[in-house]
Amino acid sequence: MAQHTVVVSRSTLKRLPLYLHLLEKLQAEGVETISCTYIAKEFDFDPTQVRKDVEATGEVGTARIGFRVAGLTDKIKEFLGWNNAHDAFLIGAGNMGKALLGYKDFEKYGLNIVAAFDKDPKKVGAKIFGKEVMPLSKMPALVKRMHINIGIVTVPAEHAQAAVDALIDAGVKAIWNFAPAPLKIPEGVILENARLTQSLAVLTNNLTRVLKP
Amino acid sequence: MAQHTVVVSRSTLKRLPLYLHLLEKLQAEGVETISCTYIAKEFDFDPTQVRKDVEATGEVGTARIGFRVAGLTDKIKEFLGWNNAHDAFLIGAGNMGKALLGYKDFEKYGLNIVAAFDKDPKKVGAKIFGKEVMPLSKMPALVKRMHINIGIVTVPAEHAQAAVDALIDAGVKAIWNFAPAPLKIPEGVILENARLTQSLAVLTNNLTRVLKP
Repeated sequence: MAQHTVVVSRSTLKRLPLYLHLLEKLQAEGVETISCTYIAKEFDFDPTQVRKDVEATGEVGTARIGFRVAGLTDKIKEFLGWNNAHDAFLIGAGNMGKALLGYKDFEKYGLNIVAAFDKDPKKVGAKIFGKEVMPLSKMPALVKRMHINIGIVTVPAEHAQAAVDALIDAGVKAIWNFAPAPLKIPEGVILENARLTQSLAVLTNNLTRVLKP
Repeated sequence: MAQHTVVVSRSTLKRLPLYLHLLEKLQAEGVETISCTYIAKEFDFDPTQVRKDVEATGEVGTARIGFRVAGLTDKIKEFLGWNNAHDAFLIGAGNMGKALLGYKDFEKYGLNIVAAFDKDPKKVGAKIFGKEVMPLSKMPALVKRMHINIGIVTVPAEHAQAAVDALIDAGVKAIWNFAPAPLKIPEGVILENARLTQSLAVLTNNLTRVLKP
């Protein structure tokens, strides 16, 4: 499909889920069409930017009517790769790992966490939200057998690089990292950091300034 | 302190935690001084940008030696507001809420989640990682009595706006939102979204392109 070959900026990729969340809300309220101006106003974005983002997904609007909410929802999901399920393995069955295993919305966004792995024998064997925790030693063979492309890393910072290396050695193509650690990956592998500390930094720095007498 | 009044870009604020994680790793390895060039190389950033980021914190380096790892660590923490503990309330004791309550590193980054609130009577009364889950109705009085500035929102998308409204009405100054929902907040209140779906969007879109035959 042609639209998948369109390479957009990271900023566009990060705005599209916001539009999707808004579309989901509107769809639940029975709204059928929407304009870029409306979306722009909701988020205080530039309408021209919103139009560019939306058009990158391949969706075509109608003059004076705008975009169909259902059609645009589908196009955004397709563009983000959320219309197909991606199977993923998770390394590190601690608190953050457990939360991700129990996060039901992921399936809506095309992420299917198949199993979790941990090197702690005390954690192995448990079932978390129906997903088995297996010994880390079994991960490489299972990545190959099940053609797993995504590895989610929720281990402590000091073990993150080893977990990432093991996943990539096994054949995983993309790493979603939750550990607050700098990571090295070979070229061709995708690394996306979901760093809560970065978001927290923006929050606490702004708050510190607001609270200053 | 003068450096707190320096307003930096959101991008700088998001890079500083990365430097901090690197500094923590180096400190554990016994490294005492570091150059901006070294930091830049680690993250594949522009050295001039790194120097600008670092200098915004107020830390001053020495020619040919660079910055002291311990000194720079302290300055970044101070700049981000992580040297003082910020007390926070969490609304929504589901899986994501539980994970955040159990995330030990937050205290290192100046965030102290004091209590959790939920409107589900079945969740109320439980202790999660030593923190009590209280009925949502008790939140407003406690925000005032305990001078809570940060509200963390981990409720489902459809209840997020109501939770945020209640927190702001009670007097909270900053919202850290984990719900995939568009939110409206009054001027003067800080809203920071920790949206996993945005990070996931970058990952799956890139992966879809990589996997294309």
